Amino acid sequence: MTTEPGRRERRKRETRVALENAALRLFAERGYEQTTVEDIAEAADVAVRTFFRYFSSKQHVLFGDVGHDIAVRLRAGFEARPADEPAIEAVRHALEALRLNDEEQQRQIGARLDLMARQPALLGSYYAVFAELTDVVAEYAARHGGQDVDDLYPQLVAVAAMGSVQAALSVWHAGRGAAGQTLDDLCRESFETLISGLAPR
Amino acid sequence: MTTEPGRRERRKRETRVALENAALRLFAERGYEQTTVEDIAEAADVAVRTFFRYFSSKQHVLFGDVGHDIAVRLRAGFEARPADEPAIEAVRHALEALRLNDEEQQRQIGARLDLMARQPALLGSYYAVFAELTDVVAEYAARHGGQDVDDLYPQLVAVAAMGSVQAALSVWHAGRGAAGQTLDDLCRESFETLISGLAPR
Repeated sequence: MTTEPGRRERRKRETRVALENAALRLFAERGYEQTTVEDIAEAADVAVRTFFRYFSSKQHVLFGDVGHDIAVRLRAGFEARPADEPAIEAVRHALEALRLNDEEQQRQIGARLDLMARQPALLGSYYAVFAELTDVVAEYAARHGGQDVDDLYPQLVAVAAMGSVQAALSVWHAGRGAAGQTLDDLCRESFETLISGLAPR
Repeated sequence: MTTEPGRRERRKRETRVALENAALRLFAERGYEQTTVEDIAEAADVAVRTFFRYFSSKQHVLFGDVGHDIAVRLRAGFEARPADEPAIEAVRHALEALRLNDEEQQRQIGARLDLMARQPALLGSYYAVFAELTDVVAEYAARHGGQDVDDLYPQLVAVAAMGSVQAALSVWHAGRGAAGQTLDDLCRESFETLISGLAPR
């Protein structure tokens, strides 16, 4: 009996992942526009009403809870850092703690970037995720420095952090990283190079 | 007779600006969803088919040719720089040459940012403009350094350039710039601070 909640949670997670994977596979095979919520539910072997217990729309399943998940990890990363450390140090550590190297996660990131490349109309959702995360970083940096979230310094810390992740993703997706360089390695190099004044190599 | 082409061009420009201004006013007054192409044409005192000679859709008039116009100015800015200058210097000068301080232009930028703040669904178009301009900078930096457009360095030069413009726009729109600081001043400070390692002030 004591294992029930754990089992229920696990099953919910499995259903969610099955829906995300089915959706990404169908979007790639048939195209985003040609795929319906009914198709996704059927491919994941669940009822349409089950789909809507996990996702509010087709657009929602496209990015799943990527933005939310990463926001939670970033916030936890910031909280784990000492308050007297410069904001930029905390951002460096929080980005490292993202750990984007998990195989399943990378496969999903790759599938989503493939879709964006083929269907530019979906780019809006992609950038919306970045906008949400940029806000998370700006809010942290503003709180840390006793500034307003719309002050220049917190905004710049935020665009540096998320801009370097964006650049790393482009490079990784195009297969232009150095041999053996993981997505996490690329994020790190990206951020370090950006805040080191972009000296040409 | 010799002034005819000039006059025709001027009149076309006036019609385009009238349509953009009418659209932005109606979007603000009634909401984006509640405004039709017919409403916009009527408010600008032109026929609906005239609207479609200038813009392909309601979404198109929202950002007008902002992305295209700025892309043209950025490319011209890059071309005006000596080839032996570091890419980051050329970007600094190209950003300065954007000159966003024209009053009419600032009013339109402000109206668009107001709309985005109230209707997050329109953010996708806003970020699409940035994505287009990020590509322009990355292409320049790649060509300049004999690299691939998807290599890390050109991508970072691009996110630094457009990220600092994005930060400057947020600060400017929130009224958080220093007293007397123009949008151009803010873009300059933004870029300099970003590529100076974001030392806390």
